[in-house]
Amino acid sequence: MAINPDFLEHLERMVGRPYFSAHREDLVCYGYDATAALYVPDAVVFPASAREVSQIMKLAADFRIPVIPRGGGSGMTGGALAVKGGVVVVFNRMNRVVEIDEENLIARVQPGVVTAEFQNQVKRRGLFYPPDPSSASISTIGGNLAECAGGPKAVKYGVTRDYVLGLEAVLPTGEIVKTGVCTAKGVVGYDLTRLIVGSEGTLALITEATLKLLPLPESVITMTVAFGSMNRAAHAVSQIIRSHVVPRTIEFMDNASIRLAEDYLHVGLPVDAGALLIMEVDGRRQEIGGLAHTLEDLSRHLGAVSVTVAETEEQAQRLWQARKAISPALFKLAPHKINEDIVVPRSRVPDLVAKIDGLRRETGLTMVAFGHAGDGNIHFNIMLDKSDQTELEKANRAVDALFDTTLALGGTISGEHGVGITKAPYFRKEVSDEAMSLMLRIKQAFDPLGLLNPGKIFPEPID
Amino acid sequence: MAINPDFLEHLERMVGRPYFSAHREDLVCYGYDATAALYVPDAVVFPASAREVSQIMKLAADFRIPVIPRGGGSGMTGGALAVKGGVVVVFNRMNRVVEIDEENLIARVQPGVVTAEFQNQVKRRGLFYPPDPSSASISTIGGNLAECAGGPKAVKYGVTRDYVLGLEAVLPTGEIVKTGVCTAKGVVGYDLTRLIVGSEGTLALITEATLKLLPLPESVITMTVAFGSMNRAAHAVSQIIRSHVVPRTIEFMDNASIRLAEDYLHVGLPVDAGALLIMEVDGRRQEIGGLAHTLEDLSRHLGAVSVTVAETEEQAQRLWQARKAISPALFKLAPHKINEDIVVPRSRVPDLVAKIDGLRRETGLTMVAFGHAGDGNIHFNIMLDKSDQTELEKANRAVDALFDTTLALGGTISGEHGVGITKAPYFRKEVSDEAMSLMLRIKQAFDPLGLLNPGKIFPEPID
Repeated sequence: MAINPDFLEHLERMVGRPYFSAHREDLVCYGYDATAALYVPDAVVFPASAREVSQIMKLAADFRIPVIPRGGGSGMTGGALAVKGGVVVVFNRMNRVVEIDEENLIARVQPGVVTAEFQNQVKRRGLFYPPDPSSASISTIGGNLAECAGGPKAVKYGVTRDYVLGLEAVLPTGEIVKTGVCTAKGVVGYDLTRLIVGSEGTLALITEATLKLLPLPESVITMTVAFGSMNRAAHAVSQIIRSHVVPRTIEFMDNASIRLAEDYLHVGLPVDAGALLIMEVDGRRQEIGGLAHTLEDLSRHLGAVSVTVAETEEQAQRLWQARKAISPALFKLAPHKINEDIVVPRSRVPDLVAKIDGLRRETGLTMVAFGHAGDGNIHFNIMLDKSDQTELEKANRAVDALFDTTLALGGTISGEHGVGITKAPYFRKEVSDEAMSLMLRIKQAFDPLGLLNPGKIFPEPID
Repeated sequence: MAINPDFLEHLERMVGRPYFSAHREDLVCYGYDATAALYVPDAVVFPASAREVSQIMKLAADFRIPVIPRGGGSGMTGGALAVKGGVVVVFNRMNRVVEIDEENLIARVQPGVVTAEFQNQVKRRGLFYPPDPSSASISTIGGNLAECAGGPKAVKYGVTRDYVLGLEAVLPTGEIVKTGVCTAKGVVGYDLTRLIVGSEGTLALITEATLKLLPLPESVITMTVAFGSMNRAAHAVSQIIRSHVVPRTIEFMDNASIRLAEDYLHVGLPVDAGALLIMEVDGRRQEIGGLAHTLEDLSRHLGAVSVTVAETEEQAQRLWQARKAISPALFKLAPHKINEDIVVPRSRVPDLVAKIDGLRRETGLTMVAFGHAGDGNIHFNIMLDKSDQTELEKANRAVDALFDTTLALGGTISGEHGVGITKAPYFRKEVSDEAMSLMLRIKQAFDPLGLLNPGKIFPEPID
């Protein structure tokens, strides 16, 4: 159905010609994300202020046009895709760090700030913003908030939700609302802040966030620990946490991931290891040496084949580049990937690994697993050619079985990527009728016309 | 209006005679809390399971009878009071720690577990549950969740919200809903967990919670630091945090609080000091000595009159008893108290202290301030005789002025006590029309009949 031309005309006049487009060649650029799906929107706008976002939302409500917020477009589940058409609102002009308050350890930022840019700005002042998705160099704070992004440091520091104190947001009615506080404590009224965080852009358009900062840890030690098998590595992770040592990070890579990363960046990873853990400890300089030693001893005791401590910050950074390269490098294996970020309680990771091994044997498909072992958060990838119908069906059955196992182990089907469109068909596996119905009533309370980011999270009703 | 006798009969049959009462002498016991207000309910029940809570809620919905959840009855703002009559649901029989999972650092608990009891149980296993309201020895986890309790350790460890992974709860429709996950990460659907936490029992009756635990810190050092004036102490707190030293606790007591506590427990507090800070650092044994030294040096540099380090755990515990005794001991000063728990950004505490000094001079009323300086969370008390109309009016005007100042400084009118009935008249000072209207729509989505804990948080509409 063609969009109402009156709407487009009003919209263009509202935001100004340079900040509007309805040309297909522009629209295509805002029609994709990291899922590799393409949904071309009807228009794209680049507002400069909350007031403009509010006006856009009001206009869209008058014309009953869907509105889709978009950050860096690096989402893994289709959160920024205009699956029902409509206007994509891109936040790249609202990219200011409004304030870094060093006395109170808080920052106010606009949603379009690139995550790594923000991390670096606070770091230069001796401060620390821990949430750190692998896409940090292109993702935005607004997108991180919408999806409740995590990352490797969550083991010790938690996820995006834990760093949000308050929001300014535009509701689907066009009203601008302020939520939360700018202090660590605050309990006046319902927690709208954390309800909007992780709602995948379906409840409100975030126009500013007040974020909590920490003092920058004085020092970090990064080490890699190789194991003969994934199972042994998974067991070690569980024992390390149990022994009350809390590294800030425990990442793992299976053999396929190690080979991919090494091939890509040549950092000297042990390509014959069954699994590799990347661990980091941080804290005061005089303390973390001891902590690192404890970790090393413990790892050897738990069957590590080798332990290597990064000797310079550059070496450590190279390791992280290798870890972050896995996801894009996967496409060397096959033209398509099915990518899931399941979570199980840490002690159940070995069970999950066994299940993945079984599925690999049964299906003969290429499967690669890596991720945040310290949180039990596994990025599981099936590499395939989707044009091969047999492969695709096998892969879908494998995902289905894996989700069932994940939930049976007490886990969740998404730790940090969100539901979006790719996991919506599986939503009911995890969320009960009662909970879903409550969520839909909340959606209705925010968005009675169903215009904000429609088609996401909830499975499509069967007609 | 008398309650429907059919309802009472059904209710008694449902829960069993020993677990039901409609006798006034029983009801009075469940009609008060720490606000000293009394609202006698129509009935009280003591359910044993989520299924029973669900049945009670359904019956109450059929008869349109209000339901009020109650934990330890130690709330400061009237959260557990039956202000519109109805049935009080007491959770003291649902007081089991269902599971402590040492491998995954989580616990499942029923709502009626007493907070300190739970803290001690996990401590015996070398684990740590940081939220620690002063009422921990009588408050329950259910009440802590409903109010999002804080306490002194929030400086480093955050508040109750930060330790809840998932809930089982009974909705006002009687449905049992499970929310959240049992892992650190999880982003499937809206964050019902943190929406229910802090909703003061107005959205759901919590019947079980999955809580995050930490490894118990190896060691703690407790110290008291005396200053000549509140203002100097407040300034020191701001500078300490700014210097990137993060104690787990920075409590403060003004001179009136010091005298009260010393009078009560004779622990040797410096009764002539203008203000006292109680600070704690925790961590690995070999590290915290250095941290404590840094704190001591810094404090002296910032004008401390004296620094005393507790030499035994008993000494430290006596200090904490003294600190926790202030609130009850206040009634030695006057028959009534007006008690507020305002928060301002740490750097603005000196401004708030100046305002309190001004109000004390202007009104001539007895005012006592103490609390969680590290969070900027001040427990401010006006002691008075409410039968003296002039005093009462002066006190109310002072509270009004203090709230205005608090908000102007970027703060909030409640850090951890909630709104309940005592702060409901001031709710609109902090929460905008848009935010309140959104909260009311959320309330409607959960509780269309308005039966769960009515008369709380939101100001009464003017007829």
